[in-house]
Amino acid sequence: MPDPKVLAELRAFVSERDWSQFHSPENLAKSISIEAAELLECFQWNSDADQARLVEELADVLTYCYLMADRLEVDADRIVADKLQSSRSKYPADQARGKSTKYDRL
Amino acid sequence: MPDPKVLAELRAFVSERDWSQFHSPENLAKSISIEAAELLECFQWNSDADQARLVEELADVLTYCYLMADRLEVDADRIVADKLQSSRSKYPADQARGKSTKYDRL
Amino acid sequence: MPDPKVLAELRAFVSERDWSQFHSPENLAKSISIEAAELLECFQWNSDADQARLVEELADVLTYCYLMADRLEVDADRIVADKLQSSRSKYPADQARGKSTKYDRL
Amino acid sequence: MPDPKVLAELRAFVSERDWSQFHSPENLAKSISIEAAELLECFQWNSDADQARLVEELADVLTYCYLMADRLEVDADRIVADKLQSSRSKYPADQARGKSTKYDRL
Repeated sequence: MPDPKVLAELRAFVSERDWSQFHSPENLAKSISIEAAELLECFQWNSDADQARLVEELADVLTYCYLMADRLEVDADRIVADKLQSSRSKYPADQARGKSTKYDRL
Repeated sequence: MPDPKVLAELRAFVSERDWSQFHSPENLAKSISIEAAELLECFQWNSDADQARLVEELADVLTYCYLMADRLEVDADRIVADKLQSSRSKYPADQARGKSTKYDRL
Repeated sequence: MPDPKVLAELRAFVSERDWSQFHSPENLAKSISIEAAELLECFQWNSDADQARLVEELADVLTYCYLMADRLEVDADRIVADKLQSSRSKYPADQARGKSTKYDRL
Repeated sequence: MPDPKVLAELRAFVSERDWSQFHSPENLAKSISIEAAELLECFQWNSDADQARLVEELADVLTYCYLMADRLEVDADRIVADKLQSSRSKYPADQARGKSTKYDRL
């Protein structure tokens, strides 16, 4: 995951442009932050945002995340599932229910 | 995508804690930026970073991206594939090859 | 601080446009993150950046920081000096010298 | 600006720890984004935030901004005033009044 077909398309896109030279983990981390801020910009002055613009900015963040997972040789879905496992113990359902409190203050 | 099983686990995790009330698109966008910065922090003073820490921070960004896609009722992989389609025309392979130049200056 | 003349100019700029309604602390915090990412974008693919562009992006971050300090009714320089005071004890010069290690691992 | 006394204190703090080696413009830009996200984290799940925590996080952003201005050999207040000058023409008061619209859509 992502879907092997999408991952293959991403890799081909990068390879055809000879861009993997730019995709160090550090540069990808910067890129994820930059795109995340463009997503945030949809909400700069209010809580509503245009769905089409949101989707496009979210796609940019996801694209760099997938490229980074690929670079780190991990599976995007697998690491999400693993992290969820640890979040379950940090945030026991009965203590965390209905609260946005951080785990170290639960 | 993400894998239906992972998506189901994410939804159950949120639902068991009654957290969907906090997951407005705006709050998720803020969360993506916050987690992206924690990923960037791995590279604050140098270009090397611990793989285990990187993977964990990347998982946090991905988790909020998946939750946002779910909230917007779009498929994470589909929007990545759609965006790639438009990037292909913005960055023709023969013009963009080996260059990190932004499309509007190609 | 900032220079009372610059602060007065900033306030007049906002007031003439009736923009203080948009400048909640939360919106200013989002704006600071958004502008910080534009500054980071100068370094997305390499370590060099155009000085004129850097200066302009840095000015945008500073502008929102000054507006936020003003909104919180604190003096920008005073809070920097106060924080420096606490950083001095977190990072004793003899232990921190030449190291980029975070204080909790010193 | 910042106040010469605060600037001198900042420089001494860095110099006593031999930290200027870490303060490339790129690393400072990353640091500004990282600290901006910690400020944003105060508002992750709601619009209210603890004033003391806000002030401390804002101070961190400002500190790195001042260090970056110093590194770029520009005066923080001067560049804010210069940028304000250009914002005045991008956002004429009579067209921008009461609107959060970006200049290119005014």
